[in-house]
Amino acid sequence: MQLLASYLHGTWSTGSGSRTALVNPTTEEVLAEVSTGGHDLAAAFAHAREAGARELAGMTFAQRGTLLGALAKAIHGAREELIALAVANGGNTRGDAKFDIDGGAVTLSYYAELGGKLGTGTLLADGEPIQVGRTARMGGQHVWARRRGVAVHVNAFNFPAWGLCEKLACALLAGMPVISKPATATALVAHRLAQLFEPLLPKGVLQLLIGPAGSLLDHLRAGDVVAFTGGSSTARTLRTHPKIVEHGVRLNIEADSLNAAILGPDVDLGSEAGALFLADVVRDMTQKTGQKCTAIRRVLVPEARFKDVCEAIRERVATIAIGDPSREDVRMGPLATAAQRDDVRAGIARLAAATEAVHGGTGDITPVGVPAGKGFFVGPVVRSTTSPMDCAPLNDHEVFGPVSTVGAYSGDAGFAAAFVARGDGCLVSSAYSDDRDWVASFVGAAAPWAGRLYLGSSKMASQSPGPGTVLPSLLHGGPGRAGGGEELGGERGLHFYMQRCALEGDASVLKSLVGG
Amino acid sequence: MQLLASYLHGTWSTGSGSRTALVNPTTEEVLAEVSTGGHDLAAAFAHAREAGARELAGMTFAQRGTLLGALAKAIHGAREELIALAVANGGNTRGDAKFDIDGGAVTLSYYAELGGKLGTGTLLADGEPIQVGRTARMGGQHVWARRRGVAVHVNAFNFPAWGLCEKLACALLAGMPVISKPATATALVAHRLAQLFEPLLPKGVLQLLIGPAGSLLDHLRAGDVVAFTGGSSTARTLRTHPKIVEHGVRLNIEADSLNAAILGPDVDLGSEAGALFLADVVRDMTQKTGQKCTAIRRVLVPEARFKDVCEAIRERVATIAIGDPSREDVRMGPLATAAQRDDVRAGIARLAAATEAVHGGTGDITPVGVPAGKGFFVGPVVRSTTSPMDCAPLNDHEVFGPVSTVGAYSGDAGFAAAFVARGDGCLVSSAYSDDRDWVASFVGAAAPWAGRLYLGSSKMASQSPGPGTVLPSLLHGGPGRAGGGEELGGERGLHFYMQRCALEGDASVLKSLVGG
Repeated sequence: MQLLASYLHGTWSTGSGSRTALVNPTTEEVLAEVSTGGHDLAAAFAHAREAGARELAGMTFAQRGTLLGALAKAIHGAREELIALAVANGGNTRGDAKFDIDGGAVTLSYYAELGGKLGTGTLLADGEPIQVGRTARMGGQHVWARRRGVAVHVNAFNFPAWGLCEKLACALLAGMPVISKPATATALVAHRLAQLFEPLLPKGVLQLLIGPAGSLLDHLRAGDVVAFTGGSSTARTLRTHPKIVEHGVRLNIEADSLNAAILGPDVDLGSEAGALFLADVVRDMTQKTGQKCTAIRRVLVPEARFKDVCEAIRERVATIAIGDPSREDVRMGPLATAAQRDDVRAGIARLAAATEAVHGGTGDITPVGVPAGKGFFVGPVVRSTTSPMDCAPLNDHEVFGPVSTVGAYSGDAGFAAAFVARGDGCLVSSAYSDDRDWVASFVGAAAPWAGRLYLGSSKMASQSPGPGTVLPSLLHGGPGRAGGGEELGGERGLHFYMQRCALEGDASVLKSLVGG
Repeated sequence: MQLLASYLHGTWSTGSGSRTALVNPTTEEVLAEVSTGGHDLAAAFAHAREAGARELAGMTFAQRGTLLGALAKAIHGAREELIALAVANGGNTRGDAKFDIDGGAVTLSYYAELGGKLGTGTLLADGEPIQVGRTARMGGQHVWARRRGVAVHVNAFNFPAWGLCEKLACALLAGMPVISKPATATALVAHRLAQLFEPLLPKGVLQLLIGPAGSLLDHLRAGDVVAFTGGSSTARTLRTHPKIVEHGVRLNIEADSLNAAILGPDVDLGSEAGALFLADVVRDMTQKTGQKCTAIRRVLVPEARFKDVCEAIRERVATIAIGDPSREDVRMGPLATAAQRDDVRAGIARLAAATEAVHGGTGDITPVGVPAGKGFFVGPVVRSTTSPMDCAPLNDHEVFGPVSTVGAYSGDAGFAAAFVARGDGCLVSSAYSDDRDWVASFVGAAAPWAGRLYLGSSKMASQSPGPGTVLPSLLHGGPGRAGGGEELGGERGLHFYMQRCALEGDASVLKSLVGG
C-alpha cells in the first residue's frame, strides 16, 4: 500500500502515527494511505520564513510569473496521469477531472502572464499619486507590499488541482511562501502536483502537508495569512483559533453558498437565453456530481413557466448515465466520500419535508458498472416549491450534491434579488434576461449579496462559460454565509497576500519608489 | 446633574438602570451621567434597517455628499462650544480640541466633495471592463455595491469628534445607516455632535448609543459591519463574538500600535529634516497627552546622534507647561481617565525596568492650576536603550500616554525596517532622510508592517502635517497588532461598507450598469 508523503522543510516525509485511507469512491477500494501526524511543522514554517521568503524576495513579479508558467506546463505534460488519479480518487468523470486540472493550469498561466505585465518592480502602485500638502511637492501614494510571513492554504476535497493552483498562483506571484494542505480524502492529485512542482520551484516556496492539519495553525504569527476553502463549521473554528485572534492573522474564507439561478419574466424556454438557463442548471447539478461551491442550488422561475421548467429539467436529468466515472458512457460519478453521501442524503431528507418531488426521490439509484452495494452514489434530485422565500431548508442549508430546488415567483426583479439575499451571501448567482431594465433593477439589489453575478442573455449565450465556472480574471468569493472572502479577480487576488501602505512625503521621492 | 440621552429609533432616550459618571479629568468633577442600559436596541437596529436603509437607498453619492457637507458646516457653527466640551471632558488643551474637532469637520468636507465627484450613480465601478469570452461581447466588470445592513461604530475615548465623523463619513457616503457608540468617558462631544447632526439627517441614518455596548452586537446579522477603534483586548472579544463569527460579519479593527520614528544616518539634527524629526517626536509625545493611536512610541537614531537626540528631546519636553488645559499657558493636559493614568503608570514601570532614564522619572508632576491631588496627570517620560530590538517592554506593549523611548542603531536601513516590523504591525511609522537609496531600502522592507509610512525630508519639511495626523485621503489602519483594518484613504474608505461583485455577461449590458 502506497503511503503518501508530505513535502515539508525540503524533504518528502511520510510522518508517523495512525493511518487513514484514501479510497476510490466508486469501488470503495483503498488507493493509498496517509499518516495522521508526526510531521515537524515548526521546521516547515521556519523553512518557509527563511529559505522560501528569501528566494521570493530576490525575484521580480516577472520572474515569479515565469515560475508559474513552468508549473502550468508541468500540468499539461502530466495531464493524462492526473486525470486518471482524479477519476480514481475523486469519482470524477473525465470531463470533471479536466474541469479541475485544466482549470488549475489555466489559472497558473493567467497569473504567469500577469507577472510579466507587472514587470520588474517589487511594490505595486495602488491608485495614482495625490497631493496632501499645500503644494504638489507634498504627496501621497498608496502601494501594495508583499507580506513577510507564510501563506497557509487549506483546500477543499472537490477541486484538488484547481484549489491548490489558484491559491498558489496568487500567493507566489505576490511573493509569499506557501504551506498547502489539500483535503485528505482526494489528496492523490495534489500529491502528484507537488511532486511535479517540486523540482521547478526554489526551496521553501511550496510545501505540502497531506493528512490532518494537526497543530498547523499553532505556528502562525503576525504577517502570516490563512486562506481556507471548505465548510462553515471549520470556518467558525478558524475564525476563533487562538493564534489567528491573537495575531490578527488575515483570514480568507470561502464557505457555504446557496447560489441561485433566476429566470427573468421575459425569457421563453425555447429562446437562446432560455436554453442557456436550462443547460446551466442541469450542468451545475451534475458536473462534479454537484460538488462545486459555485453550483446552482436554488432555481427561481416565473409562475407561468414553473411547470415547464420543472419538466424540462426532469427530462434532461433523467437521461444522464450515472455510475463508474471511468466509463465513457457515464456522465456522473459518485460523491467523493461516504461522509459527503451521508450529508447529502440528510440534506435531501430535510428538503423533502418542505418541498414537492420533481425527480429522483431521495437519490437512490443503481449505478452503471459498479459492484453491487459499493460506491458513494446519490442520483440527481429535483425538488420544487411555490413558496421559495419561506422554505427554510432550501435557503438555510447547502446540500453539496446533485440536488436543486425550483421555486416560483411573480417575475418581479426586486423579489428575485431578495431571494438571492435570502441565502445570506453567496459566491455567485445568475439571472437570465434580455430586458435591460429588469437586469438593472436586479443587479442593483442583488450585488451586495454575491461575489459574482452572472447575467445570462441571448447575446452572450454562445460563448458563456456558465455561472459555475470560476475565471481567474473575476472575483471568487462572497459575503456572509459564503465566508466574506475574495480570491482571484486578476491583480485583486494578490492583495490578500500583500499589505496596503500609504506612502507620504516628497512627491518626487514617492514617484521613484513606484518606478515612476 | 445632566443625564445624557442616547439617540435611538428616532427618539432621545436616557435609558434606565444604574448610572456612570463622566468627569473632568483635570478636576475630577462630575460633568454628566449616563445610564448603563435600558435601551431598546432591537428597535434601533430595525429603525436603521427600515427607515435608514430606505432613505439612503433613495440617494445618489452626490446627495449623500451634500448631507456630509451640512454636517461639516454644523461643526463649524458650534466650534467654540465643542472645544469647551473637549477641554472639560477630555482634558484637551484648546489645540488638542481643535485637532479632534477640526479633523472631524475636514474629513466630513473631504467626503462631501468626493460624493460630488462620484456623482449620480449607485454602483461604483471597480477597475476597467475586461473580456472573459472568445470575443469582446462576453465581458466582466467589477463593481462596489452598498451593503444592506447596519454599520456599527465603536469609537475610542481619545477622538470623540474625529472618530465619530470619519467613520460616519465613509459609511454614509457608501450608503449604510450607522449606530455609533462613543467611548463613555469622553462622550460629551459626541453627544453634542449627535444633537447638531440629528435635524440635518434623514430618519434612521445615524443613531447614537451612549453608555456600555450591552447587547449591541447580539443584534448583528448577515450584511452588517462593525468598525472598532480601541484596545486589543476588546478587539479579541469582538473577533470571537458569536454573532460576528456566525454571520461572518465584516469587522474593521484599529487597535494597538507601536509606531516608530527613525532618523536616517545622513540627517544632521540642525538640518531641516533633523528639525522636523525632533518637532514630530516632541509633538507626538505631548499632543493629546500622547493619547493618539498614531503617536510615536519608539524612536530610533544612529549611534553617533543618540546622546544628542536624547538631550534635544529632553530639553524641549522639559519646557512644556502641564496642567489645567483650559489655561492658555498650558500645553499639555491630563490623561482622559483614571484607568488610563493607571495603565500609563504601569507601562512606565515596565519600561523603566528595561531602559535608561532620560527625562521625567515615572511621570510624577505637579500640574499648573489644578487643585492639589486632583486630575489624572502624568508628565512626559523619555527613556532610552542601546538595545532597542531586544527590549520587550518597548516593542510588545503600547503605553498610551506621553512616553517615548529612544534607541540606538547603526544607521542600517534593513535594521530600521526590522525595528518597525518588531512592533508586529503598526498604523504608521516615519523615517527622516534625504538619502533616496536609504529610503528605498527602508520602504521596501518596512511597508508590509505599516498602514502608512511617513517619509520626512528637507524638501517637504515646510508643509508636513507630521506622521501623527491622519488625512482622509490616505489609508488609516495597519496590519497585525494594529488590527488589520483599513479606514479612509479616499474612496478606499467606502469599500468596507460595500460588497465587491464581479458582473459577468454581455459587455454592452455591463457598460450600461456602471453608467457607461
